[in-house]
Amino acid sequence: MRKKLFKIAAALLLAAAIPAAAQTNVIKTQIPPRPAGATDMIGFRTAPMDSVRVGFIGLGMRGPGAVYRFANIDRTSVKALCDKHADRLAKPQKYLADAGRPKATEYSGEDGWKKLCERPDIDLVYIATDWNNHVPMAVYAMEHGKHVAIEVPAAMNLDECWQLVNTAEKTRRHCMMLENCVYDFFELTTLNMAQKGLFGDILHVEGAYIHNLEDFWKAYEGNWRLDFNEKNRGDVYATHGIGPACQLLNIHRGNKMNYIVSMDTKAVTGPKIVEKNLGRKSPDFQNGDHTMSMIMTENGQTMHIQHDVMNPRPYSRMYQLTGTEGFANKYPTEGYAFRKVAEFEGMPDHENLSSHSFVPDDVKEALMKKYKHPIHVETEEKAKKIGGHGGMDFIMDYRLVYCLLNGLPLDQDVYDAAEWSAIGELSRLSIENNSAPVEFPDFTRGAWKKQNGYKHATK
Amino acid sequence: MRKKLFKIAAALLLAAAIPAAAQTNVIKTQIPPRPAGATDMIGFRTAPMDSVRVGFIGLGMRGPGAVYRFANIDRTSVKALCDKHADRLAKPQKYLADAGRPKATEYSGEDGWKKLCERPDIDLVYIATDWNNHVPMAVYAMEHGKHVAIEVPAAMNLDECWQLVNTAEKTRRHCMMLENCVYDFFELTTLNMAQKGLFGDILHVEGAYIHNLEDFWKAYEGNWRLDFNEKNRGDVYATHGIGPACQLLNIHRGNKMNYIVSMDTKAVTGPKIVEKNLGRKSPDFQNGDHTMSMIMTENGQTMHIQHDVMNPRPYSRMYQLTGTEGFANKYPTEGYAFRKVAEFEGMPDHENLSSHSFVPDDVKEALMKKYKHPIHVETEEKAKKIGGHGGMDFIMDYRLVYCLLNGLPLDQDVYDAAEWSAIGELSRLSIENNSAPVEFPDFTRGAWKKQNGYKHATK
Repeated sequence: MRKKLFKIAAALLLAAAIPAAAQTNVIKTQIPPRPAGATDMIGFRTAPMDSVRVGFIGLGMRGPGAVYRFANIDRTSVKALCDKHADRLAKPQKYLADAGRPKATEYSGEDGWKKLCERPDIDLVYIATDWNNHVPMAVYAMEHGKHVAIEVPAAMNLDECWQLVNTAEKTRRHCMMLENCVYDFFELTTLNMAQKGLFGDILHVEGAYIHNLEDFWKAYEGNWRLDFNEKNRGDVYATHGIGPACQLLNIHRGNKMNYIVSMDTKAVTGPKIVEKNLGRKSPDFQNGDHTMSMIMTENGQTMHIQHDVMNPRPYSRMYQLTGTEGFANKYPTEGYAFRKVAEFEGMPDHENLSSHSFVPDDVKEALMKKYKHPIHVETEEKAKKIGGHGGMDFIMDYRLVYCLLNGLPLDQDVYDAAEWSAIGELSRLSIENNSAPVEFPDFTRGAWKKQNGYKHATK
Repeated sequence: MRKKLFKIAAALLLAAAIPAAAQTNVIKTQIPPRPAGATDMIGFRTAPMDSVRVGFIGLGMRGPGAVYRFANIDRTSVKALCDKHADRLAKPQKYLADAGRPKATEYSGEDGWKKLCERPDIDLVYIATDWNNHVPMAVYAMEHGKHVAIEVPAAMNLDECWQLVNTAEKTRRHCMMLENCVYDFFELTTLNMAQKGLFGDILHVEGAYIHNLEDFWKAYEGNWRLDFNEKNRGDVYATHGIGPACQLLNIHRGNKMNYIVSMDTKAVTGPKIVEKNLGRKSPDFQNGDHTMSMIMTENGQTMHIQHDVMNPRPYSRMYQLTGTEGFANKYPTEGYAFRKVAEFEGMPDHENLSSHSFVPDDVKEALMKKYKHPIHVETEEKAKKIGGHGGMDFIMDYRLVYCLLNGLPLDQDVYDAAEWSAIGELSRLSIENNSAPVEFPDFTRGAWKKQNGYKHATK
């Protein structure tokens, strides 16, 4: 049953988990103790490398494009390719050949990925399979000494989030989720402006994944994506929205997410899609057609995240920030507003600039030029040529390689992967308990204060 | 203290108010019993009138414009004008004179409004004072046999909401809140499209009041508006956002709001404004710089409401709906999207119409023309001439008079006034309890099922 208005479990959990003196209405989940001998991964870095040797698992949808990008990044070597279906390997092999790279060793079948992970000559395993295989593969790869990069979401529930954290802390391997949206042009430019103080004290951020998947569900092998939505309530695909928002708020770099409340609509379109695509009824479709969450941070800011892959809405990965001195918004219109825009240096001269409106286009362009992120300055030309969602995929892979080559901390660490992925189960817990607040587990287990502010490492 | 993370009161309320067997985590507020002899006001109407005789209280900011509009509506008679300050009465008297209307009787001073309410020759008392005077004046007027129209918000806390409901039910007088935004062109057109089924099953609606009041705070006599924000946490000005949203979802016409969760940011700009405008510190400023709420309805839809009067953002009374077949959005860009837009009759012919984008401008214009609301067809010309927020204020007053003249139910009843105003205190309760869900009290006390769907009455 989808409706559980009088869920006794929640009341029991409340009563059992919290000492009477500090009893609150916040639902808490279990935080496992740190494995013996493990330490946190804040600022984790490994020795510089001469080249990054990569193995790819999952070459259906997202994988081949990743191979293409790596074939165009210097000082990388694609050693191995793996997919359950051997016939999917020809396309990425062609990308390698076209770039003058050597042919990669091929793996396929049910256990091919294990053999790939066991190779001694690979530094990084790049996982672009269906969601449910991410964590088993990543854990296995780390346990075999490999760094891992995992498509979004990295983990599908809290237990899987903790598996990633515990394994990374124990094996001292990088575990990066491949959240590409943090590298998009408006997002990274705005992050730079935020870090330079243009928006003042940032108070509120919004993110979303609004994408009508009506025409795409059948592209996922064995119907895995619709199947996951049918079986799981909550914001199951939050990372594109929450990732850029967390970087703006320095989450686990001196700030943290404290609790989340979530709410969803009835599922109307979901069951219709099942009936249309699979020819059967879906009387207990779990995922609401529209899901939203609000999150409170330690530093008194709020976040708002939405998810809708069912309804006919214009595409939106809402990216919005409200600060005491300025405002930025990406969808449906990119724009900025400021309290004192007339005081900015080097901006086009306008009369009657108002904090009640977006700045005119020429001011926006001048700002975006002045505050172009150093990463974009460095990569823009090649990113636009190699592409992948307009360039952001290339920048993501480029930064991953750059940090590994130079022995720097990665832009996204295992705690980002866990925090951004955790919204799936945390939002479900809230929804199933009348939108009760649910504590955001501190995946750093106390280490979130060790750094002060998010930054991209450079040599 | 603004922060109350371990609020024992909430736990006690939870434990005390709900029987153990049905214990949930939803905070409930007290629903007073209906006064003896009173009945509900669903569909309430009075006998048709030859003319509507009006007295106005509060002629500082919003009042004079209202007098001007009434002076331009047939079959109305402005009998009396009242403001604490006698010198404010000249301007509205001039509006009457300019329209060839007789001079109104003048009242002023602390108790002038009581004398106005006591006159036997007035049908309607129109209240446009500061927020804290709304309910005392409305109750007094109803107890003296007058219908009342009250500026937004009608009531400032739950006790005041119940005072309005109980007094209206007991005295059998209309009590309408003057929510003007429900009459704006995009909103009313979209409501018409929704009622005609173009958006399918409506799942999610959004509303907001985003208006940087930096330059306006000093206009409120005695600093009453900033003072209210300094003393009150929560979404204290929700009606412009929630009003149109509730009409779309047929609230207390076969549907109802079940619970609300709210969250706010720290107050940073608020205390700065106090210091700048009043020359003193404000160490315990209550209202967060940005406040948001999520509401769950009986019929499984969700609502999202935001409030920000502090920060430099472009003006927005976000009006958005997501349905199974279509989508509408007002800020920053008015637009529609539909799953099957190509199938609509009489629309301009386009290739490649996509449910992933807003429809082209000519399709939007054709839709807005085809689905223009009958009220706009009737009033548009005069509304644009008389004006008031682009015409919607005129339409609001025109409809109030039209319904009274014809003995019809008003467009907004006392339950709308109570529900839309109640968000102030309900959101505060949620925020002060870590965003706990708070039950939305059923102000109709069970009568919300008596009507099926929202509609504007016509003769």
